[in-house]
Amino acid sequence: MKLASLKNGSRDGRLVVVSRDLASAVDAAGIAPTMQFAIEHWAWVAPGLQALSESLNAGDVTSSFAFDPTQAMAPLPRTHQFVDASAFLNHGNIMERAFNLSIKRPEGVPILVQRQSDDFVGPRDDYPLLGDNENADFEGEYAVIVDDIPMGSSPEDCSQRIRLITLLNDVSMRAHLSRELQMGFGFIQAKPATAFAPVAVTPDELGDGWSHGRVALDMHVHRNGHRFGQPNGREMDWSFGELLAYLAYNRNLRAGTVLGSGTVSNIDASRVGSACLAEWRALETIEHGAARTPWLKAGEVLRFETFGASGDSVFGAIEHRFVEQRA
Amino acid sequence: MKLASLKNGSRDGRLVVVSRDLASAVDAAGIAPTMQFAIEHWAWVAPGLQALSESLNAGDVTSSFAFDPTQAMAPLPRTHQFVDASAFLNHGNIMERAFNLSIKRPEGVPILVQRQSDDFVGPRDDYPLLGDNENADFEGEYAVIVDDIPMGSSPEDCSQRIRLITLLNDVSMRAHLSRELQMGFGFIQAKPATAFAPVAVTPDELGDGWSHGRVALDMHVHRNGHRFGQPNGREMDWSFGELLAYLAYNRNLRAGTVLGSGTVSNIDASRVGSACLAEWRALETIEHGAARTPWLKAGEVLRFETFGASGDSVFGAIEHRFVEQRA
Repeated sequence: MKLASLKNGSRDGRLVVVSRDLASAVDAAGIAPTMQFAIEHWAWVAPGLQALSESLNAGDVTSSFAFDPTQAMAPLPRTHQFVDASAFLNHGNIMERAFNLSIKRPEGVPILVQRQSDDFVGPRDDYPLLGDNENADFEGEYAVIVDDIPMGSSPEDCSQRIRLITLLNDVSMRAHLSRELQMGFGFIQAKPATAFAPVAVTPDELGDGWSHGRVALDMHVHRNGHRFGQPNGREMDWSFGELLAYLAYNRNLRAGTVLGSGTVSNIDASRVGSACLAEWRALETIEHGAARTPWLKAGEVLRFETFGASGDSVFGAIEHRFVEQRA
Repeated sequence: MKLASLKNGSRDGRLVVVSRDLASAVDAAGIAPTMQFAIEHWAWVAPGLQALSESLNAGDVTSSFAFDPTQAMAPLPRTHQFVDASAFLNHGNIMERAFNLSIKRPEGVPILVQRQSDDFVGPRDDYPLLGDNENADFEGEYAVIVDDIPMGSSPEDCSQRIRLITLLNDVSMRAHLSRELQMGFGFIQAKPATAFAPVAVTPDELGDGWSHGRVALDMHVHRNGHRFGQPNGREMDWSFGELLAYLAYNRNLRAGTVLGSGTVSNIDASRVGSACLAEWRALETIEHGAARTPWLKAGEVLRFETFGASGDSVFGAIEHRFVEQRA
């Protein structure tokens, strides 16, 4: 099934079930008022939501209405934990090669970054940009939303607690990134609010596209209407379950935790393109000695979308414009 | 006024108003069911909570009951954003001097670390410890809980949005800290769940102890009943308002955001002691060439408490035991 949170003036929005083709939706308030409530009471509410989803897809719900992604908030408009991985080593390798960096990462240890989750951005909301000198960038990622995971859970157990999958744009301000990375304490000004796709879906909606705990589907990235890349999520170097188990080593993960994959990146990036400006600029630097593609400026529009085997959009599209905002 | 969240089986607990002397409490459900609700609707609920607090302190509330800190959760048992600063440069200076480290921090830029906020620990709850080789440590800190702060707010405006102040123990597993610091992406396994004092209080409860946006009060730290240190919060190198403004540079901070001060540390630490084992071990290393004080082991008990001008405990005490937990 596919779920979304629609704007209703509240911080958490109202939960709706969305049809597989993303054309229609139905209010889920009778089962769960918000996405957070649904995740926290999954065992109780999932059967009812699933039944509603099946009726909606069969055209049997008279109270359905057209699904308007401009009215969607992030599927979880806010939550209590967001961790972003950098689980495609290819991305890191390209960055290190281009800029002579060396991340001191012990063999096997994944990069995971604790992030803020108080103010996610909806799929069609304008994104505020302080100025062109912020070196604004995007990172197209897949993400999972999990149920409670007790401390010490195995990768297999963690994998069984993945309730929903979605797509996000990890918006990055590169003007601050190198400074913050060198300080060692993670990201603050380099990573403002994160934008999400209109819907989150249960793993079964991906069919064979959910494979080995990874989203083995192309992510189509467009910049101002032009194709920028379509890397596939299958080359993730850790499964989501493995990343969750690393995270749960000495702490509980509570329901609603969002884990991002890191920017989707493929070995043959020079052919399939990239989901991240910095990575593409790094490839240009390696090939030409300097980056040619500029950072984002106010007025630009990005689009991220993933299609399933049937050709349908799985998560709907993030399509957002960067707008200048002065303090 | 003083507020707490009592255990009731829910993830957010139930809000109570606690008397100034921490002896009694009264249910606040008629005004705000949870602390999160109170913070989100502060302008509406604060007058009612304040009136209830005044009646309670005057002994005029017949429905009051004894306040039992073992039944307290963290004041905000979970929230949507937790950022921990390291705003006492003295602490960093000691660490750098002892271990020949060099944090590449541009002049004036504060250290802020994005942290998880899904599973805070109550003031008297046992703390799970995977083993003695985790090099378990504590960091006694002051923290503020803020209302919504729009992107670009000034330090003064941010300061006006501080609703509550509390005390926390930023439990740290030093076996993982150096590795994670060198990777550059902040903390994951080095910083599991954070423990909080029983109550959070409005700034006026501190009297002159709330000074220049800092908690100018001694924090009394005890390890297994023995005094470990009592550093004063006044030496913070940035005010909470300044730290919040840095954080809000390019993003909104939403109601319930918790900002920690970093371990309280004083220039004359060798005299007043420390709120952090690693800092004390660093001082020993500087003086004796090696650390003498061992890391925490299972069975040990820590206590953190701050007293106001009247001698009353301001936030109540964190007093918790570390217990071995095997996966």
